[in-house]
Amino acid sequence: MSNSKKTLPPDSINNPTRRSFLTKGALLATGGVMSLAMAPTQAAPVTINVPETVTGGRTRFHQIYDVIVVGSGFAGLAAALEAKSHGLSVLVIEKMAVFGGNSTINGGAFAVAGSPQQKEAGIQDSPELMYQDMLKAGRGLNHRDILHVLVNGTQEAYEFTLKHGVRYKPFVQHFGGHSVPRTLQTVESSGAGIIMPMRQSAQKLGVIFKSRCKFESFIQDNQQTVVGIEVKENYYFPDENSGLQKNYGARYGVIMCSGGFSNDLRFRMIQDPQLVSDLDTTNHQGATAEGILAMLKIGATPVQLDLIQLGPWSSPDEKGFGNVSQFNTIAGYPMGIMVDARTGKRFTNELADRKAREDAILAQRDEQGKPVYPICFTNKEGAKNAQSLPAALKYQVAWQFDTLKQLADHFALPYENLQKEVDEYNTAVANGSGDRLGKDVSRAISLAEGPYFAVRVWPKVHYTMGGVQINPNAQVLNSLTGNPIQGLYAAGEVTGGPHGASRLGSCAVADGLVLGRIAGAHVATQTANPLFSTSDSDNA
Amino acid sequence: MSNSKKTLPPDSINNPTRRSFLTKGALLATGGVMSLAMAPTQAAPVTINVPETVTGGRTRFHQIYDVIVVGSGFAGLAAALEAKSHGLSVLVIEKMAVFGGNSTINGGAFAVAGSPQQKEAGIQDSPELMYQDMLKAGRGLNHRDILHVLVNGTQEAYEFTLKHGVRYKPFVQHFGGHSVPRTLQTVESSGAGIIMPMRQSAQKLGVIFKSRCKFESFIQDNQQTVVGIEVKENYYFPDENSGLQKNYGARYGVIMCSGGFSNDLRFRMIQDPQLVSDLDTTNHQGATAEGILAMLKIGATPVQLDLIQLGPWSSPDEKGFGNVSQFNTIAGYPMGIMVDARTGKRFTNELADRKAREDAILAQRDEQGKPVYPICFTNKEGAKNAQSLPAALKYQVAWQFDTLKQLADHFALPYENLQKEVDEYNTAVANGSGDRLGKDVSRAISLAEGPYFAVRVWPKVHYTMGGVQINPNAQVLNSLTGNPIQGLYAAGEVTGGPHGASRLGSCAVADGLVLGRIAGAHVATQTANPLFSTSDSDNA
Repeated sequence: MSNSKKTLPPDSINNPTRRSFLTKGALLATGGVMSLAMAPTQAAPVTINVPETVTGGRTRFHQIYDVIVVGSGFAGLAAALEAKSHGLSVLVIEKMAVFGGNSTINGGAFAVAGSPQQKEAGIQDSPELMYQDMLKAGRGLNHRDILHVLVNGTQEAYEFTLKHGVRYKPFVQHFGGHSVPRTLQTVESSGAGIIMPMRQSAQKLGVIFKSRCKFESFIQDNQQTVVGIEVKENYYFPDENSGLQKNYGARYGVIMCSGGFSNDLRFRMIQDPQLVSDLDTTNHQGATAEGILAMLKIGATPVQLDLIQLGPWSSPDEKGFGNVSQFNTIAGYPMGIMVDARTGKRFTNELADRKAREDAILAQRDEQGKPVYPICFTNKEGAKNAQSLPAALKYQVAWQFDTLKQLADHFALPYENLQKEVDEYNTAVANGSGDRLGKDVSRAISLAEGPYFAVRVWPKVHYTMGGVQINPNAQVLNSLTGNPIQGLYAAGEVTGGPHGASRLGSCAVADGLVLGRIAGAHVATQTANPLFSTSDSDNA
Repeated sequence: MSNSKKTLPPDSINNPTRRSFLTKGALLATGGVMSLAMAPTQAAPVTINVPETVTGGRTRFHQIYDVIVVGSGFAGLAAALEAKSHGLSVLVIEKMAVFGGNSTINGGAFAVAGSPQQKEAGIQDSPELMYQDMLKAGRGLNHRDILHVLVNGTQEAYEFTLKHGVRYKPFVQHFGGHSVPRTLQTVESSGAGIIMPMRQSAQKLGVIFKSRCKFESFIQDNQQTVVGIEVKENYYFPDENSGLQKNYGARYGVIMCSGGFSNDLRFRMIQDPQLVSDLDTTNHQGATAEGILAMLKIGATPVQLDLIQLGPWSSPDEKGFGNVSQFNTIAGYPMGIMVDARTGKRFTNELADRKAREDAILAQRDEQGKPVYPICFTNKEGAKNAQSLPAALKYQVAWQFDTLKQLADHFALPYENLQKEVDEYNTAVANGSGDRLGKDVSRAISLAEGPYFAVRVWPKVHYTMGGVQINPNAQVLNSLTGNPIQGLYAAGEVTGGPHGASRLGSCAVADGLVLGRIAGAHVATQTANPLFSTSDSDNA
């Protein structure tokens, strides 16, 4: 019985282990390849003509790059730009038709410790303070080494984005769980405001982009070094029968920036059976687990996969991230209040960390366990920066009222309670402190005057804190030895550890950009040690 | 370049993927093997003489069994006995010098829903009630399919243990988080009271046992079916350089019963960085993660690995499980009270589930964050069933006092507070209900009279709720497909899911015995489909 490819069963297509007899020096077997060894590493990719079947410890690379980045979100683009800036040839693949993944539909909010905007506003901040905030929100479960790297890299990452054309609003915002305002936001109020200019910049610099190109599995040599990946080109998500299988080689490393799995119903329910199908998610359809699972299968270390965050600011009245999430983040929570729909009373610090708010909101249920959607509102002054409000009003997922009485009547809230609650809150705002629920009201506004803008709130599956373990060089670690898996990097949501039990808002952008850059920079230090040699002969 | 074994780097010894070219039909290549195909499956294992090196898709099995069980605790012995009772040849391997793992040092407490002892005591119970209790303690994170199987199997598993010689105390106990008393306990007050008779019974029936035999990795065929394991015989824990490598074949399946990882400092800190080295564990030294990790590496699904339980009844004054844990479980908590060492006031329901108690105790810290060990005590009447008390007194990890005043003085507790607390508690006990902290005092006793027995309390790392995912047949599931990995079973603490966020006391024995039996029974249904055929020729 031979071991030729055609004898493999159909389901083995996802299994990289059958590559394990690939040997160093046997990768590039034809004469045409030898000239490649002479080419500079920036050379355009070349097709290698080796036999069609996998035999005798030889594989076929249809293309070879210095670095392959899987995923085109914040982490992927940061890694690609950084590697390219060091002169490497870089391929970015994206399984979806459009680039950017969740990053393009996120709010474009980026926590930077020590930004010029903070200095201008007289806000004292430091990486150490950000570290403490994230550790507190993470309930101590954070991986401190990665967290340390993350908070120390935000300023540089901010400058890096400016260099690549990203534009931010001139003011800094106060997101829940942060002890000071430190959140910058793109002028577009969207992550697309980061993704689009960074991708344009990368393309100009010569980074190769392929969409509809799905990562399938890793190609490893005999020493388990990752030397490439198997992909499907012309893949049409989610049709697993679509696409043409190809092998890409990576001279210095593969960087996995394939994101989280909030939209992978099967895998998220294995981790938390409560996250059932009728719980909506803010994530795009492609947010699935295959990238993480492929890494686990070659020995990566799983970290805290069941720590899954529900976004505590979304609306049950619209699908996905929607327009309400941004309204609440920018206006409703910092500049307004949220009340129990039965009592008209506030029940949580609207600026607590996400987990605290998520838990408080999910506890709002009637005796049968059915959700009682809380009402969040602010007034015209509070909503002035909420760019998504017109759309939310248009789609009737937000409502405008001239008076509190009208607001109360619309939602069948007890008006007297509500008025009393607003009065009490306004008193704390006027004093600049002393809020009953511990909210920092030093930058809040009085809600005495309308008109008011109100939304209903219910959490959605938003972010998977867990993923694979990396070291501070963004190298993926082997679960048995704790040592790096040679040739394999990861950054962004596909990794686990920095956020612990609960990620703070605007720290995903920070995570992706900072660790993505580190991955791209570290892989560029490996040029003296290619993972395979193009000059070895087949019989070496 | 050949793929012969000697070219593999040293670190690949833990890597099963290099076996991936092993093909069905190529396992047993010599003429001497053919006679094995004729032998009944109960035949004693035979050494197969095939070439020393792994070449051309051939491996060497030094021994072949119908079933190989990895681990000799509750799950392992239950699986072995069940498989043996169906006529299969069974090997049980244990890496430590002694058999039984953690199971021998646990308290021998077994939750059975519907035991004769319950009926005798007039206690109404059902699998459904146990299911609800475990789901509540598990905070809804439980895998319902496995939980269902678990609670429905306790009665039969109880009878199974009786058949194999286990003896229980004639009364039923009330452990924390269970809504009724349903915990049986061996007369020895130890899991050794289950392990020893079951192992003797298994040996009599012909199960082969090998200690100092460490599981190293799986051997898979081309279709990723698990057909055997690589072990180290004569292994001296924890010396990884000791032992002689051997390959064992398993005709119908390998059952992983290798336990949890509470004593694997590196891996447990990856999952929960707060579980640092100076936090003690109740577990034996061999409770490490390599079994789980090896399964993940062949595609098993990780479940909730960061859900790690601290035992809320152990003592900071002794190492390991110790004598105090049993005292608190049997006497201190159900028959006594636990107080804050600064105030003399109770601070938690002593019969709450483990997580609730663990969290409450761990919150007992001074302003610098240092532990303030709570004091738990009962009186002579309450301690009458606590067999470990004499040892605890002898080793001065428990103390005896004639009066409450003496007890208070010894621990520098405010006596008046303490007396008031005891009086209040006694009132609730006299009423049979109405405890301030919600404790079920219907079976509690008055603490009006001494002498008193007291201990100090601090949690220790006790149980890893997470592990690999199995289906209700105890088959290990592939993370990508959700389908069983052919030839691979798992049961007991190495699996994840049934307990969710917090395992209830005495449910580990239930889990191990019930799911172990299911694994052993299911593998016995596979005799028509051996994982490899001994009659295939090398060139088929």
